[in-house]
Amino acid sequence: MTEPAERKGYFVRLLALFPLICLINFSSVEAKTVYHKWEVKYEYKSPDCYKKLVITINGRSPGPTIFAQQGDTVFVELKNSLWTENVAVHWHGIRQLGTPWSDGAEGVTQCPILPGETFIYRFVVDRAGTYLYHGHYGMQRAAGLYGSIIVSLPEGVSEPFSYDYDQNIILNDWYHASTNEQAAGLSAIPFVFVGEPQSLLINGRGKYNCSLSTASGSAAGVCNTTNPECSPSSLTVVPGKTYRLRIGSLTSLSALTFEIEGHDMTVVEADGNYVEPFAIRNLYIYSGETYSVLVKADQESSRNYWATINVVARNPATPTGLAIFNYYPNHPQKQPPTAPATGPLWNDTASRLAQSLAFRARQGFINKPPVTADRVIVLLNTQNKIDGHFKWSLNNLSLILPQTPYLVALKENLTGAFAQDPPPDGYDVANYDIHSVAENVNATSSNRIYRLRFNSTVDVILQNANSMTVKNSETHPWHLHGHDFWVLGYGTGKYNISCDWRKYNLVNPIMKNTAPLHPYGWTALRFRADNPGVWAFHCHVESHFYMGMGVVFEEGIEKVGELPSSIRGCGESEGHHRP
Amino acid sequence: MTEPAERKGYFVRLLALFPLICLINFSSVEAKTVYHKWEVKYEYKSPDCYKKLVITINGRSPGPTIFAQQGDTVFVELKNSLWTENVAVHWHGIRQLGTPWSDGAEGVTQCPILPGETFIYRFVVDRAGTYLYHGHYGMQRAAGLYGSIIVSLPEGVSEPFSYDYDQNIILNDWYHASTNEQAAGLSAIPFVFVGEPQSLLINGRGKYNCSLSTASGSAAGVCNTTNPECSPSSLTVVPGKTYRLRIGSLTSLSALTFEIEGHDMTVVEADGNYVEPFAIRNLYIYSGETYSVLVKADQESSRNYWATINVVARNPATPTGLAIFNYYPNHPQKQPPTAPATGPLWNDTASRLAQSLAFRARQGFINKPPVTADRVIVLLNTQNKIDGHFKWSLNNLSLILPQTPYLVALKENLTGAFAQDPPPDGYDVANYDIHSVAENVNATSSNRIYRLRFNSTVDVILQNANSMTVKNSETHPWHLHGHDFWVLGYGTGKYNISCDWRKYNLVNPIMKNTAPLHPYGWTALRFRADNPGVWAFHCHVESHFYMGMGVVFEEGIEKVGELPSSIRGCGESEGHHRP
Repeated sequence: MTEPAERKGYFVRLLALFPLICLINFSSVEAKTVYHKWEVKYEYKSPDCYKKLVITINGRSPGPTIFAQQGDTVFVELKNSLWTENVAVHWHGIRQLGTPWSDGAEGVTQCPILPGETFIYRFVVDRAGTYLYHGHYGMQRAAGLYGSIIVSLPEGVSEPFSYDYDQNIILNDWYHASTNEQAAGLSAIPFVFVGEPQSLLINGRGKYNCSLSTASGSAAGVCNTTNPECSPSSLTVVPGKTYRLRIGSLTSLSALTFEIEGHDMTVVEADGNYVEPFAIRNLYIYSGETYSVLVKADQESSRNYWATINVVARNPATPTGLAIFNYYPNHPQKQPPTAPATGPLWNDTASRLAQSLAFRARQGFINKPPVTADRVIVLLNTQNKIDGHFKWSLNNLSLILPQTPYLVALKENLTGAFAQDPPPDGYDVANYDIHSVAENVNATSSNRIYRLRFNSTVDVILQNANSMTVKNSETHPWHLHGHDFWVLGYGTGKYNISCDWRKYNLVNPIMKNTAPLHPYGWTALRFRADNPGVWAFHCHVESHFYMGMGVVFEEGIEKVGELPSSIRGCGESEGHHRP
Repeated sequence: MTEPAERKGYFVRLLALFPLICLINFSSVEAKTVYHKWEVKYEYKSPDCYKKLVITINGRSPGPTIFAQQGDTVFVELKNSLWTENVAVHWHGIRQLGTPWSDGAEGVTQCPILPGETFIYRFVVDRAGTYLYHGHYGMQRAAGLYGSIIVSLPEGVSEPFSYDYDQNIILNDWYHASTNEQAAGLSAIPFVFVGEPQSLLINGRGKYNCSLSTASGSAAGVCNTTNPECSPSSLTVVPGKTYRLRIGSLTSLSALTFEIEGHDMTVVEADGNYVEPFAIRNLYIYSGETYSVLVKADQESSRNYWATINVVARNPATPTGLAIFNYYPNHPQKQPPTAPATGPLWNDTASRLAQSLAFRARQGFINKPPVTADRVIVLLNTQNKIDGHFKWSLNNLSLILPQTPYLVALKENLTGAFAQDPPPDGYDVANYDIHSVAENVNATSSNRIYRLRFNSTVDVILQNANSMTVKNSETHPWHLHGHDFWVLGYGTGKYNISCDWRKYNLVNPIMKNTAPLHPYGWTALRFRADNPGVWAFHCHVESHFYMGMGVVFEEGIEKVGELPSSIRGCGESEGHHRP
């Protein structure tokens, strides 16, 4: 609720810094500069009532929301005030047209930012919509380094739907172990999984059951349910008004279902793209996705209602995440008289698949996909053991990022920086049984990348399979940097290259930057390799990416402009960190 | 007890790597190359029975002991396998003659080593003796990144004392909070001190009272006193034999007293310099110091004895640290029948001062100091508040290291990298009351440095004072990089520049690299600025240095050879990390 004031604060600061430019911009409809000065550091916070060290931006987690208008240039001057840790921040959903070096993917587009150093991210937000940002180095996202980007339409342009106000809702799951502790387990032999999160957060607030905290390691005073830092987030609404809820998820692990007790929601936007409106009672949302839903405050106004998130796709061990959908003028913290929703069955994959299939591009805003692809890459998603460590692999390659960022290595032809042979475009479809545990003994760690012909059309078929646990196949939200892709289709079982393309929606597929791969299923995506740069494409589950679940695409490297020296300083990349 | 085998291992490895060179060297008395390949990472360890993440070297904390012979060149190829943290390692007591870039002091002599990167430290161990190594970045030393360096005499040269065997003993104090948690408290407003350590470690082993662990935050299984990792270290001795115990301390906070029940000790070495032998019952040892003591196994041999360390100079809240002085053939873990020593009174400053004063250079090995100094720098040690944060200052300047290492900045004349005005050589002696709490409202953070005339003789008078707590003055062990200094004298109260020099020992002062500054006292040190480079001089208490308690000396920068590119890559220092 503080965001309008916060937004004003930025402009005031901006005014102070660029008085002339800003005055000009305020008096016109020209693109503006949105300036943020951030300090990233560790601080003790109690987002779910349990006190732990959190990576904050200007003292906050989630960090400040970036508000901008389509066409604006966003400057984020980020000072790393961590003590011994580097950092990098990815602008999730922003395509970085012309600024591939600002994508913030450590090892792909930049060297990490050293403690004490300041790095300037500069990029244009070319399209209105709801986006995210988060740490993209080690597992720092899970330490609390995340936030929202809201891009509004240009002056005089309206959304194709109407609402009175908008509200921002960012979802997360939350662990009490530090990211070092989580990574130590994932790297250990025997493997120790991060496990289920301790709580779910809505707008950075959750509620851990402190009575469990003696067993799980809290000192006296470490867990305190009366701490105002963890009082539930209130979404205050005026009766009769319609709200656009901009909902984003940056969970480390959990697929979620979001609902507001007694209220229908109409989905209108997904990952910055308009979708043909359709009504739902619960929204399935996977890590890395954003949606806008319209909700009318049309229920009995003398009480409040629960807004809830619940874990799906994994047998949940985490309590429901709660916020209060607060009908003005009730007290924002007044508890609803009802029990919070527990959501659909966690293992109702069919229901999740059905919702994935229900999305269509909005009439009048359809961006038609090319009818055929120049190249089809089928990625078999498997869990493997490599040198005794659990890993995730694509076609038996588990991604390890090189010391020298790919962008620098490719631009400067540092061929020693990573293995130059291409990874395979497919797997042994005929002989691989996706329903059985496979050892995949030939799986290896690799930093090989896919090099795409510039402007070619590329299909990626994500093929799910059984994990290394009997009768288990997990859900993987795949996120592509630098592009939106068309979501051509989803299916169950093994993708059949000779006929499953017939199921594709080539008429009005939605475009997204993140799409789920459902258990034992396949997901077909198409994109145009038209953004010069180097782009990560990976599972957005923090531990899965840590365990190698990603690939990297290069396209049009020769068209990339001169790299800023600030992205260098590691591996074979000469130059210094300061811009 | 595994060290001889370990040492052999190194030579075997060395043989494999440099077969020809080694064969030649083994057959001659020429200097050899000692090669270590280290991987630094986080692992769960239970040094005091409480399981936590520890920074290990090749899976160990303390790390492997470096054994070398005077004149050898030591190569340490260090791979940083931490996830998001950089690292740097300092070779404590090694003067780095001709290799100032290998000193390992982050911000002073090098940029930190990034995760995934490998850095080669190369230096000559020019003098036999007992030395240390440890992390010198953030508070990583306190995370377990430390070990010993043992340099033996050249073939055919004997020590001026005799013994049968030597044993290595490294002392530490140990915290259960992570270094991030410790630093978060030190940086917080209000300030949260790291507090007293949970346990004391001898050769990396201590014993925490696990029954306290529910209160202090341990989950079930986190604290386990039956874990063999935390069984006490055994120092096995053969009755009638004389042992040289090489004792080093790398405590974060604690000054210690070391004793072996029922055994006299004769001190023969301090910080790599021979001292005139003298007998003691307990050795006071401050963080950063090393000593060799001779102990004869001359007691009743049917039992074992306690070797103990206890905290002094602070009101102790940490239990005695224990090892077993094991008379062969008793079982190494057989408990002595007696109660462990509790040591002298913690606040018996006079006794500690007396021991400091008792040291003399050994007859026949006296390195006479210059009789006068070219420059006298008096450093008033105070605690201050700066911008609401507790800090430690010298003459009201609290050190903050610059982004660009001083060595690079000075060599390349990057005058913007740090403030060029010199810090003051003294303080307001006439008006400053060292016995009262002073606010020192003019204290500031600073990265100014002392530039010394090459080959000049410099006196540093460390002047202690009251801290910001009424009637409290702390003990500060000051460590100088790149040099030994002559310890000219210690005194109580305010140093009087017009007469206290008369108390100096100019006849046979010992040389050291670390010397204590006692409460409300002064310590007078003299050194020759004859080692081209940039050298830190700081309090060796980890939290005090973190809070700014240090200065930096430059001397003969124009004589420093070409800097290796591997030390660059941060701040304004161009170049890449790889050598």
